[in-house]
Formats: sequence, structure tokens, C-alpha cells
Amino acid sequence: MTTSSNFRYVALADEIQNGIMKGTFSAGEKLPSLRKLHLQLGLSVSTVHQAYIELEKRGRVEAKEKSGFYVKALIKNPLGKPAREKVSAKPCRVLINDLAKTIVNSLQSKKMLQLGAAVPSKVLMPLKQLSRIMKSIPAASLQDHISNYDSFAGNINFREQISKRMIGSACSISAEDIITTNGCLDAVSLCLRTVADPGDTILIESPAFHCFLQLIEDLNMYVIEIPGCPEDGIDPKVFEKTISNNKIKACLLNSNFQNPLGSVMSKDNKAKILKIAKTHKIPIIEDDIYGDLFYGDKRPVTFKSMDKDGMVLYCSSFSKALAPGLRTGWTVPGIYKDELIRLKLNTVISNSGINQAVVAQFLKSGAYDRHLRQLRNRLKNQASAMAISISKHFPPDTKITFPKGGMLIWIVLNKRINSLDVYQKAYERNISILPGIICSSSEKYKNCLRINCGIKWNQRVDDGIKTLGKIIKALS
Amino acid sequence: MTTSSNFRYVALADEIQNGIMKGTFSAGEKLPSLRKLHLQLGLSVSTVHQAYIELEKRGRVEAKEKSGFYVKALIKNPLGKPAREKVSAKPCRVLINDLAKTIVNSLQSKKMLQLGAAVPSKVLMPLKQLSRIMKSIPAASLQDHISNYDSFAGNINFREQISKRMIGSACSISAEDIITTNGCLDAVSLCLRTVADPGDTILIESPAFHCFLQLIEDLNMYVIEIPGCPEDGIDPKVFEKTISNNKIKACLLNSNFQNPLGSVMSKDNKAKILKIAKTHKIPIIEDDIYGDLFYGDKRPVTFKSMDKDGMVLYCSSFSKALAPGLRTGWTVPGIYKDELIRLKLNTVISNSGINQAVVAQFLKSGAYDRHLRQLRNRLKNQASAMAISISKHFPPDTKITFPKGGMLIWIVLNKRINSLDVYQKAYERNISILPGIICSSSEKYKNCLRINCGIKWNQRVDDGIKTLGKIIKALS
Repeated sequence: MTTSSNFRYVALADEIQNGIMKGTFSAGEKLPSLRKLHLQLGLSVSTVHQAYIELEKRGRVEAKEKSGFYVKALIKNPLGKPAREKVSAKPCRVLINDLAKTIVNSLQSKKMLQLGAAVPSKVLMPLKQLSRIMKSIPAASLQDHISNYDSFAGNINFREQISKRMIGSACSISAEDIITTNGCLDAVSLCLRTVADPGDTILIESPAFHCFLQLIEDLNMYVIEIPGCPEDGIDPKVFEKTISNNKIKACLLNSNFQNPLGSVMSKDNKAKILKIAKTHKIPIIEDDIYGDLFYGDKRPVTFKSMDKDGMVLYCSSFSKALAPGLRTGWTVPGIYKDELIRLKLNTVISNSGINQAVVAQFLKSGAYDRHLRQLRNRLKNQASAMAISISKHFPPDTKITFPKGGMLIWIVLNKRINSLDVYQKAYERNISILPGIICSSSEKYKNCLRINCGIKWNQRVDDGIKTLGKIIKALS
Repeated sequence: MTTSSNFRYVALADEIQNGIMKGTFSAGEKLPSLRKLHLQLGLSVSTVHQAYIELEKRGRVEAKEKSGFYVKALIKNPLGKPAREKVSAKPCRVLINDLAKTIVNSLQSKKMLQLGAAVPSKVLMPLKQLSRIMKSIPAASLQDHISNYDSFAGNINFREQISKRMIGSACSISAEDIITTNGCLDAVSLCLRTVADPGDTILIESPAFHCFLQLIEDLNMYVIEIPGCPEDGIDPKVFEKTISNNKIKACLLNSNFQNPLGSVMSKDNKAKILKIAKTHKIPIIEDDIYGDLFYGDKRPVTFKSMDKDGMVLYCSSFSKALAPGLRTGWTVPGIYKDELIRLKLNTVISNSGINQAVVAQFLKSGAYDRHLRQLRNRLKNQASAMAISISKHFPPDTKITFPKGGMLIWIVLNKRINSLDVYQKAYERNISILPGIICSSSEKYKNCLRINCGIKWNQRVDDGIKTLGKIIKALS
């Protein structure tokens, strides 16, 4: 036992802390009982107890009444925080490569360590319940779904359940205000096509979700990027200046736990930004896909909840918080509803209603809130374990964001390192990551990576982070 | 018994023919046995037999060995055929209304007689088999579908089954050449976006499927319409002239049983058109959604089957021949595959794999061919009954197409009649039809209607046609 102290309890505390850092004990995990360690190590119950109290003081564990000691999730960033980047605010054509395709495709490969795409681990999804619901749909109802084009607005039960859940997130909406889509990106795509035309310029936060950039390019639109702060997103003053100096047709913003930064704009800043956008008559397309995955006590607010005029087009889906394979997204497009329905009708006529009916049933049962409580806790613990592992294995000049929700960590490496090289070498070792360069239409973020914390923390993930650390050190 | 003859068997034949015209006996239905009519009418078995032989001569019934006499489906158009319309071939912006939305929405209403949208009746779909397959998916496999983003190209079993079915319809394709979509229109939309940009001009056949026109408008493209002949579609000479005199980016053609005319281009003409398009380096987007629904002996050929260079983007779905609610479409985009995958990825990431797995299982079981044989026969009989009813109830100057496949009849009324008036008055009487005016970007086809023959023929349908006839006569 290597120790920095002559006190037995301090030595034991160090040892356990080491185990936490190495991932032997992960965030949220129950530590061995006093009696068990007493028997195992030959130390007195009192010494073991003192060690746990010491770890509690260090903020590493927490006692739960009548249950024992648990590894605490991180509350502080173990590394330095990245600063807000300077981004030149001028409209430009998006020019990116097809890395995204390789990353999504590698999701099919079981041998790949999935740190690239933002997906929750299978073990975090209520799969048994969902498949049980699907299997229990009465044959007559199933035959109805199979034989009919669904209403083009979407399954009515699904929309009703969503309208109930959105109380508080939107100003008094009803099922009629909701249009279902094939996932959240489909909703964003329809909203963009609704409010903007080819040649128009869309304002987004930088670094950005790479699919936003590619979608805007595919729609023959231009993009203007304004810098996001890893803590609180967009600065309303920069927003106002950019809007005043450029001809912007619409804003496309992740309101909560922005992809990739994990930032959350304060309610105050959201209100300011909404007001500025309205003054300039610019609609906001709000992507709130991570909103339910807050690590704190309260769900952060949405733009839509402050939108009295219907100029916010709200988008979300159950792909991150429930199950990506069901492809159940939706939008609340406000005053743009008729135009959006028309576009949906002329592209897909309607979506299949079966998956929507399954999610509606799950929501109605009340199981979703129970599921979310567990999922949020687990994601927080996984993000903690990931952050600790990165701080241990990556070079000390690495900076990371520590998310307040969602499932993404943004990593800023030394300027000398090209994350495309890291990506290539990691891919060869069966680790998928997202290189920062595809998160901007400029050459920004070359030295950045985005890491998915959605996969279950275990030794394999820790080893993967270690391998990434080695690759980066070798490139330094 | 009103009769035109002194012969009893002729009188009986007249009577039965009347019943066929009125829909008492519909196409494909077995007529009462000789013995039954003998007992019922007090006529000799020989007289009844002579009456049936008379009807056989008139082409109204057919004898099936050891089974009896059956009402024959129509082989000749009971009314005059519409002529090829003159359409000015100049590119123009599509400007249409939102009638299509009302028509699709009315599909949800059980009280509406569904003569508007092109949908097969529920009773024509193998719903029990499909729902049984869906219910029998093992829980583990269902959970896989629910938890994973499907491969963006689509479910591999589904694509493999399609590649097997397409032997003969396409030049040696494999599952890798197929991309699945949310129905056929989604495939067409992706293909249009792949080969053309906003501002480009797309060539289509006129009258056209109204959703094509709206989609082209939504994509900010222009359309040029060339006239289709109700019999054999586009004239290659007109096609060549139009292509030579205009800057056309792509052609979008229904290869078989064109919507709304029901026309089929001959193999020869298809080959000519493909050659001309290739000479001008213009890709053909081929929508073959009705191809499997031929009334004759043989499936008509596709452009794709003659496409050696991959310049045909083939599109289809199971929405017409199997079940619209499953939303299982696909495209074989030839040399444009990579670009199309990129667009799909950036819009929806992937489709849900469950419905695709269900159809794959259905195809694998061999049930699809059995189902198709039955469906084609029923559609042919329904179209016959519909044509006879129209010829009976509509004004005598009405012209109709008699389809060789698919499920649509195109009706040309007297020039004085505005089909929008017919549409409105029919809608008030709970009958949904498709007014011809939305089948063109010009003011053409004001006096035309499209009727769906997919719904099961019965007294209610006959009464609906009768009501339509009255409405039209009142407007004359």
C-alpha cells in the first residue's frame, strides 16, 4: 500500500480515492461496507469509518442514511475550462467532409468504443418496458396503424402526451400545435425549410452540432457562427451586434446543454436574446433535445416558454432520453404551423404511427419520469468518471468542459495537436471520437474533441480514454 | 321483367347484364349456379345456361371449369378515351393550393367515401399476416431496433429482400445499392435534392401526380410539363424536342401506370427516352410505385432495367401494394448513392428499422407474390365495376381512361364543368375526389377528376358514383 501518511485511515482513504480515479469505483457506486473492508483488510471498523469520513470531507464520497457510502459525482471540473473562442461573424458557405457518416456508421460496429456519436448506452434505456408495450398493442389497433396513412400531424395520443409534458416548457400549447417528425434533426430540417430559403443566412452558436452545419449546407443556405461560452452560451450583446450588422433569416440554437459545449444560457440571457430576435422579426428554431437530461435540481427553461408570439419553432425528440431507434421527434412551430405541415405532407405524407403509439403509452404510464430520474443520475456519474479519467490520462495542459446536463464533454487540446490525427489513430484502435474541426464551417477547433458520456462506464471505457491519452501524448 | 327480346334466355341475359351495370354483381364475382336460378325463377336449367352462354358471347361473364360463371372484368373502355392534351412546354413556377392537404386529411374520416387519395382498401391488405409478423418479433430483436440508430442505408434484411425482388427490374443490383426511405415520396424528394439545385428545371409528364408538383415547388425548383398520352405516356419525339430546347436538370417520371393517367410507356419508348436523356446527360428519377399492380400477364419493364450507367434513380414503396401505414419506401440511386446517403443522414439520420423488418419477413415468406396475385385481380375487378358505374351515371360526353394497372381512373368532363365545383359539392356529400386542376402547374385539367379504384366495390361506392353523376349533371 503506497501512502502519503502514517495514519492508517488516511492511507486507506488515499487508496480508495485512487480506485475512484482509476475507475475501480465509479461515480454513484456503493463502496464496500465497513464490515466487509474490516474483514478484508484486517483494519478496525473504526479506521475504515474514519477513512470514509475523510473521503467525504474531500468531496469524493457521500453517506446515505441506513445505506452506506457512495462515490460522489463530480461537482467541479477536474481540469481547466476552455475559454470562449473568437469567431469571425461573417456569413459563409459550409464546407465539411464526410467524417460524420463514418462516425454514425461505426455505431453499427460492436467492436468500436462509441465515444463519437451522442448516444446513451443500451443499458440506460427502458428497453424491456418499451418492447413489452409494443408487443401488447392489440392486433386490431396494430392493423389500423399498418393499413392507414397516419394523420400527417402525427399520432394523436403521442401529441396529447407531449402537450401534457410541455406544460411549463411552452406557453399553453395543445396537441394541435405539435407536428411529429422522424427524429429531432428532421424537425430542425422542416423548420429551416419553413422559415428560410436557399441563399438565406442562419445564425448558430459555435462550436456547433456538425449535423446543423451539414443540413444548412444541403439546404443551400449560409451560416453565421457566433461564439458560445462553455458556461452560459451566447452573449446577448454579441448576438445583438451580429443581428444588426448582418441580414439573418433565422437563428438555430440548442437552448440547453448545447452540442458540443454542454452550455446552458441563463433564463435572463434567453429572455434578452428572444427579445432582440423579436425586435428584428427573426424566428428562433430551438433544439431542446437534451433539456430533460439536467444534472441539477431543475429543468432549465426554454425559449418557447417565453414565446408569446409564436416566433419560436421548438424541436425535440426521444432519441437521447429514451430510445434513438424509435425515431420519435416533434416540433411546435408556432405561427409557422401551416407552412410546415405542407412541407411535411409533400415530403413524407406521414410517419408510421406505431412507434409514436408505443412512446405515448410509455408516457401515459408515468414510467418516463421514473426513467428520467435514474437516467440523469447515471449520466451525471458517467460524465464524472469520464472527466476524472481524462484528467488522469490526458496531458496536463488539456482543458475540458464539465457538463451540467446531456452527455457530452468538449476537450481542448494543445494548439499543436490536430484532432483529425487523433481521430484517425483512435479509429485504427477501434475508438470512435468526434474531431472538433467538423463543428465549424471555419478551420476552428482543429485541436478539439467531443466525447460521448452516454456509454456505460467500465474498465473498457477507462482503457479507451487511456489509449486516447497515449495517442495525444505521442502527437504532442 | 323489362326485356328487348321474346327469347327467355335473352331476357334473362339482359337482366343479369343490368345487374352487372348496376353493381348488383361486380367484376370477379361468381354468378348464381344454374340450379339455383332454375329454382328461383322457375326457368329451365337449359334456359339459364343459354343466358350465361349469351353473356359469355357479349364478353360480360366467363366460365371457369368445374366452378361456374363469373362476372368478367372490363377489357374495353366503356366510354370514350381522353386525347393527349396540348401543354405549353415552358418552365414555370408551380402555384397550387392546399386541396391535397384536405384530401389526405379526409383519409382519417370514416364517413368519407375515399375516392380522392390513391389508397387500397383495408380489406385488400394482408393485415393479419403483417400484424402477426410484427407481434412475433423476438423481444431481443425488438429491443435492438428500439435502442439503435439503424444503419442509415436502412435495415439490411429489408434491402436484401428488395434486391432479390428487383432481379429483372434493375441491372444486377445488391442490397448495398438500395437506400430505404419513409415512403416513395421521401425517396423522390431525396433524389430531386441529390441531382438538382434550387432554380433548376425538372421535366415531368402532364397531367402529373400533384405531390410531385408541390414537392418541386417546395424545393424552389421549376417544372416543365410535357403531355402524356392516356395509353402510352410520353412521346419520345416531344421529349427530345423539349430537352433540346430547354435547360433541364432532371426528369421525374412514373414509369408504369402513371398517376393520374394510368398510362404505360412501351419498352421501346422507354429505351428511346432513356437514350435521349443519357445523350443529354440528364438523370431520370423513376417512380415505379404502381409497377407491381399490372392487370395483364406481365410486369411492365422499368427504366432501371435498361440503365447500364447508373443514371436512373429508381424509387418505390410498399404503400400501394401492401400497406401505406408502414412507410417503407426505397431508392436505387445508381451513381448518385453517396450524395443521397449524405442528404438522408443530415435530415433524419436513419429510419426506424421495425417496419422494414416486418416487410422483410413478409417478403421472405413468399407471401407477397400470393398477395399480389389476389390484389391485382381484385383491383382489376374494382376498376371494371367503377368504369361501368361511371359510364352508367355520368353524362354521355364524359371520357375516361381505363387503367391497365394501378388503381386510378382519370375522368374528362365537358369543358364547361369546373371540377373544383364538383369537388366542393362532393365534399359536402362526404365524397372525396381529386380535382384535375391540381395535377398541373397551369390551369389545365379544370374539367378533369381523378378517382381511386382501390376501395372495395359495393353498393355504397356505386351510390357515391351515382351522386357524383348527379352533381355533374346539375352543373352542366
